[in-house]
Amino acid sequence: MMRKKQGILVIADGLGDRPISLLGRLTPLEFADTPNLDKLSKEGMTGNVYPISPGVPVGTDVGHLEIFGCNSIEVYPGRGPIEAISAGFDLQKNDVAFRGNFATVGENDVVLDRRAGRITQDTHRLAASLDGMVLSDGTVAYVRTLTEHRVAVVLRGDNLSMDIECTDPGTAHEGEALVKPYALIECEKAVRTAALLQEFTEKCNEILKKHPVNIKRQAEGMYPANVIITRGAGMNSSIPNIAEKFDIKAATIAGDVTIGGIGKLVGFDYFTDANFTGGFDTHVASKGQKALELIRQGYDWVIVHIKATDLAGHDNLPFEKVEIIEKIDKMIGELMDSVDADSCYIAVTSDHSTPCEVRDHTGDSVPTIIWGEDVRSDSPIKAGEKYFAKGMLNNLTAHDIFMLQMDLMGFVKKIGA
Amino acid sequence: MMRKKQGILVIADGLGDRPISLLGRLTPLEFADTPNLDKLSKEGMTGNVYPISPGVPVGTDVGHLEIFGCNSIEVYPGRGPIEAISAGFDLQKNDVAFRGNFATVGENDVVLDRRAGRITQDTHRLAASLDGMVLSDGTVAYVRTLTEHRVAVVLRGDNLSMDIECTDPGTAHEGEALVKPYALIECEKAVRTAALLQEFTEKCNEILKKHPVNIKRQAEGMYPANVIITRGAGMNSSIPNIAEKFDIKAATIAGDVTIGGIGKLVGFDYFTDANFTGGFDTHVASKGQKALELIRQGYDWVIVHIKATDLAGHDNLPFEKVEIIEKIDKMIGELMDSVDADSCYIAVTSDHSTPCEVRDHTGDSVPTIIWGEDVRSDSPIKAGEKYFAKGMLNNLTAHDIFMLQMDLMGFVKKIGA
Repeated sequence: MMRKKQGILVIADGLGDRPISLLGRLTPLEFADTPNLDKLSKEGMTGNVYPISPGVPVGTDVGHLEIFGCNSIEVYPGRGPIEAISAGFDLQKNDVAFRGNFATVGENDVVLDRRAGRITQDTHRLAASLDGMVLSDGTVAYVRTLTEHRVAVVLRGDNLSMDIECTDPGTAHEGEALVKPYALIECEKAVRTAALLQEFTEKCNEILKKHPVNIKRQAEGMYPANVIITRGAGMNSSIPNIAEKFDIKAATIAGDVTIGGIGKLVGFDYFTDANFTGGFDTHVASKGQKALELIRQGYDWVIVHIKATDLAGHDNLPFEKVEIIEKIDKMIGELMDSVDADSCYIAVTSDHSTPCEVRDHTGDSVPTIIWGEDVRSDSPIKAGEKYFAKGMLNNLTAHDIFMLQMDLMGFVKKIGA
Repeated sequence: MMRKKQGILVIADGLGDRPISLLGRLTPLEFADTPNLDKLSKEGMTGNVYPISPGVPVGTDVGHLEIFGCNSIEVYPGRGPIEAISAGFDLQKNDVAFRGNFATVGENDVVLDRRAGRITQDTHRLAASLDGMVLSDGTVAYVRTLTEHRVAVVLRGDNLSMDIECTDPGTAHEGEALVKPYALIECEKAVRTAALLQEFTEKCNEILKKHPVNIKRQAEGMYPANVIITRGAGMNSSIPNIAEKFDIKAATIAGDVTIGGIGKLVGFDYFTDANFTGGFDTHVASKGQKALELIRQGYDWVIVHIKATDLAGHDNLPFEKVEIIEKIDKMIGELMDSVDADSCYIAVTSDHSTPCEVRDHTGDSVPTIIWGEDVRSDSPIKAGEKYFAKGMLNNLTAHDIFMLQMDLMGFVKKIGA
């Protein structure tokens, strides 16, 4: 029986970047003062790793599913289930989940505003008036709030299908009518589910248009949140429970509830805190302390997620990206000082590149390190994309990095005998 | 919306090589004096890249389909459609196309010469006498000339199949009779198509044996071109239109019509010129000028193809290979001087290796560079297979290189959200 070890994985969202003129043609990671990441790199295995494959940009959801050990192309459930889990909903195998918005419709169901005037107040009260709605065949609809105008909608009943067109006409079609849901495949389940979504939408409208919150909003000249529009239908039945599959006790530490939700989908416990904001003001050091606490409690694998590197990329703020990397570096130093390198690995990676000058996700590879007492070492001079290009992990994929960590920790079964 | 950029890709056919004693155990690329390729390499990403996978040699057609973004294993249409397009034929979805030769048959359809004495004169007149032939069920046969004795044959009709054995007995069976076409799968379409090819072949023989060109040839003691033998049956229905798929405007510049034809199959415009010969005498500098002109005209991706590196490999002419590489280097210099590196990438690759001492295509990887203002750099000391082996693109595939270029240029859609 192989001895089991523990591991901490730090995910700096959108960390990967390209040479930036303002930084002397270095990337933010290359430019940053990172003594601890440099030490981790020199003593560990390094490389630039593709989220899925070269040149394919991924969303945060797909990027994290891969890092967490899923083949996201096969199992990607659509965004609905991820949002439902993020909203704290206990999604079951046959539930169909949707991303939704509170929106405003006028005459003939024309969508006047896809975000109900970016409503932020009282969405809990509106959702509560809809949550648990029983539809004609006994199917139950659940509505849970997310940030601002966003909600997750779940239909729970017999024989539902995710293969339907939803009601949201999309940003490009604001000013047009709600889409009447229809089946995308020839299948009775899909026809039924489309009809149920239509019924749900009509009943929402009936209830919401008379809701005191909306009567007040209209009196104040604001758009009423008189309907819920839906998109991203999905079921989570295809996502494997990675924690069970590898028999690991794993945890995600993140300010961003979506990351926590993705972790929960694959069976990882989620820990957050008011200090963990998912923004530039997130308390990076506390996240490291929380990780050490969970390691002491006996978690096998603890994932620490920092979102701010991605925000800096989207907003083309290279110096802010450098600053957050330096904060992460300090946390890495504390982790290195605190763990027993002989029994706990430390790894660093990212879900995708968000180069500042591109301001969006790209298909570039992402800098990655795996460190521990018995890890082979390839000694780059510093942490950074250009130094890792010659590393032994170079051109591997996020899924490869997951498997390497699981194997180092002793959780991968031998194939053959 | 991500900003779109442009790109020029230079393909030196058969560029990859192995250490050659005559060159002091350097490859032609390592041996050549290439200041511009060296600069491109130092400032760009480099690596030796496999056309499909390690150790698998590919033909020019498959190599280019991969470089152009196809999964050639899935979509390879057979050589027939590629030749038909190369011959300028407007191939439709359900056409079945063949490579063909004018050949000479004697008694009992015995093939006396598979190339009709390497006929070069008057093939247009012979083809014209057959082109548009209507077969018994209304299927129409088209015959278009290629170089020398070569032709493309296309059958256009209802319910045709490419799964048939064709008439050409092959080089090893010269002196044997024409193959009588038969279905390779149990399928009525294939049985019909085989019968139609037989009918076409018999009618060709009827018409050609009485043709004045052949009567004159026989009078002069030459082999008459009294039949067309066919091979390489294929349909182009499976080849994706890459230009549409990625929403790019792309162009191929080549002297070799087959390369132009492969480009057309995937939706790329084809430009050639009397100076572009596909031989050692091709005007490399003019091809570069044409590429710059097309970039100025707004093409997103312009491909410049040079065949002579491959010819030098096949003929074991290492110094000639060095010479053509140095010509390509000068063109690369002009491209680098002329493009705006911030908005136009330059890449260099090859469809396969043609090592001089092997005199044939091998499954070795091919030297590859991607260069541009925001490209990560791995700084090898010079352009060449041995220097690129530590590059960040090393061991990727031609398809990966296609995707990386598309992603840099901003034409790859994100997976997930």
